[in-house]
Amino acid sequence: MNAHARLSLNHATIKHAPLDDAIRAARAAGIPSIGLWREPVAEVGLARARALVEASGLRVSSLCRGGFFTQVDDEERRRSLDDNRRAIEETSLLASAGAEGSAAVLVLVAGGLPPGSRDLPGARERVRDAIAELEPDADAAGVTLALEPLHPMYASDRAVISTLGQALDIAESFGPSVGVVVDTFHVWWDPDLMRQIARAGASRRIASYQVCDWSTPLPSNVLLARHYPGDGVIDFASITDAVEAAGYEGDIEVEIFNQDVWDDEWAAVARRTADAFQSCVAPALSGQR
Amino acid sequence: MNAHARLSLNHATIKHAPLDDAIRAARAAGIPSIGLWREPVAEVGLARARALVEASGLRVSSLCRGGFFTQVDDEERRRSLDDNRRAIEETSLLASAGAEGSAAVLVLVAGGLPPGSRDLPGARERVRDAIAELEPDADAAGVTLALEPLHPMYASDRAVISTLGQALDIAESFGPSVGVVVDTFHVWWDPDLMRQIARAGASRRIASYQVCDWSTPLPSNVLLARHYPGDGVIDFASITDAVEAAGYEGDIEVEIFNQDVWDDEWAAVARRTADAFQSCVAPALSGQR
Repeated sequence: MNAHARLSLNHATIKHAPLDDAIRAARAAGIPSIGLWREPVAEVGLARARALVEASGLRVSSLCRGGFFTQVDDEERRRSLDDNRRAIEETSLLASAGAEGSAAVLVLVAGGLPPGSRDLPGARERVRDAIAELEPDADAAGVTLALEPLHPMYASDRAVISTLGQALDIAESFGPSVGVVVDTFHVWWDPDLMRQIARAGASRRIASYQVCDWSTPLPSNVLLARHYPGDGVIDFASITDAVEAAGYEGDIEVEIFNQDVWDDEWAAVARRTADAFQSCVAPALSGQR
Repeated sequence: MNAHARLSLNHATIKHAPLDDAIRAARAAGIPSIGLWREPVAEVGLARARALVEASGLRVSSLCRGGFFTQVDDEERRRSLDDNRRAIEETSLLASAGAEGSAAVLVLVAGGLPPGSRDLPGARERVRDAIAELEPDADAAGVTLALEPLHPMYASDRAVISTLGQALDIAESFGPSVGVVVDTFHVWWDPDLMRQIARAGASRRIASYQVCDWSTPLPSNVLLARHYPGDGVIDFASITDAVEAAGYEGDIEVEIFNQDVWDDEWAAVARRTADAFQSCVAPALSGQR
């Protein structure tokens, strides 16, 4: 049984699986690609993670995540930049261990307002400044920094970059090694979405396309509000059409943070992910890669 | 003791108070204006509500709320439009019972996606269509329809209008009896906010300015996530400056949906509202009206 040729299982969808189990679940469901996270990679060590990825035959679609660079304090800021430089290196090493077609893409989450701060424009400027410092490292390593706008409900405590247009304003002020993530959960509501996806295509900035669904009521922890495609209100056809029309040809990750999904069996989650992708996302894709 | 001359207590801040108690709490705190809601008005009847307002000496700053016109079904849609026409009439009658400087402003919340629908653009078009049907009635009654963009976390189930720019796109396609609400809670995160407030000023569309604060973690019911100004991360100085610079000279409502606030004594809430407004919002205001 093979899942769609462009599907990638983001490891966060089976968050509690160690890396080798996550790889096994993806392979068992016939999913050809995986989106990695730094924590489970660190658990086994980078060398072992590379060996596992290489032996798996899976593509690597991205590494989550860098970012969190809105700090005011110089020392905290330096530590964050250093950590992002390590993440760039890890991205390069992991992607090169993946099968042909792997993408050296590091997903960046901006970070929220520093404690006690109300200076949103200032925090946003620091995101731009941090990317300016990291761009040469990414470029040298052949890594794309993929800035991810997060839903505005996370603007204060997780990501001061809230719209695709805002992420593109930053990405387009840099060279081709800075791009953006289009994640349906975060951007589906945006009245300017179609125009911004087309813009991202024109400047060739879509570094990652992630899908999951939105549904209400939101759970008490709003970080865990994501659902399988089809279980909510997002129109995957129109957004996927637009991303295709914008020229994105890479893997498409299903990334779900949801306690019920996390509590489910990893193999079952991988299978259900493949099925949901097949019914909701695949019909809008032009063909097998 | 007088509160700020431009402060209005939105009745929702003391939601469980009957109308006469809400008026009493506002007056006791020296608050000169009140934002009314249809439900507590209906409880006492419109004639009695008008008499209470008239005797109070308070201004009326708005009536909440009309809207909820995203239905697909013709019969449901007709019922919604009829109800909005009644709300327009109520707005006119209540504002005329208020003290000089009262505003005949009906706040409109768009409504969410109809059950089972994923057609966000379609729902948004129906909002525009409904306002087109209501505009002549509002104009004839001397009422301003104030379309309120709600935070994107409510886009699926409460309001498909999510940004000030989107609300202005609709308002500006109509005559001067269609405006917008600027509510800090809903728009504070928007990277385009300052530009859109200036735009709203240029087209004279700011019909209401409402303030309350944003803070995380969000409560399990995200409808009740609002706080007193100063208890969260919103920079009221910069937003209020912008609204002032845009030429808005009307009352400023404090509207808080929060279970703890609702559980508190009404008089204490009104006093605390006046204090929070004085420290967070008043400093940005150019002077007493």
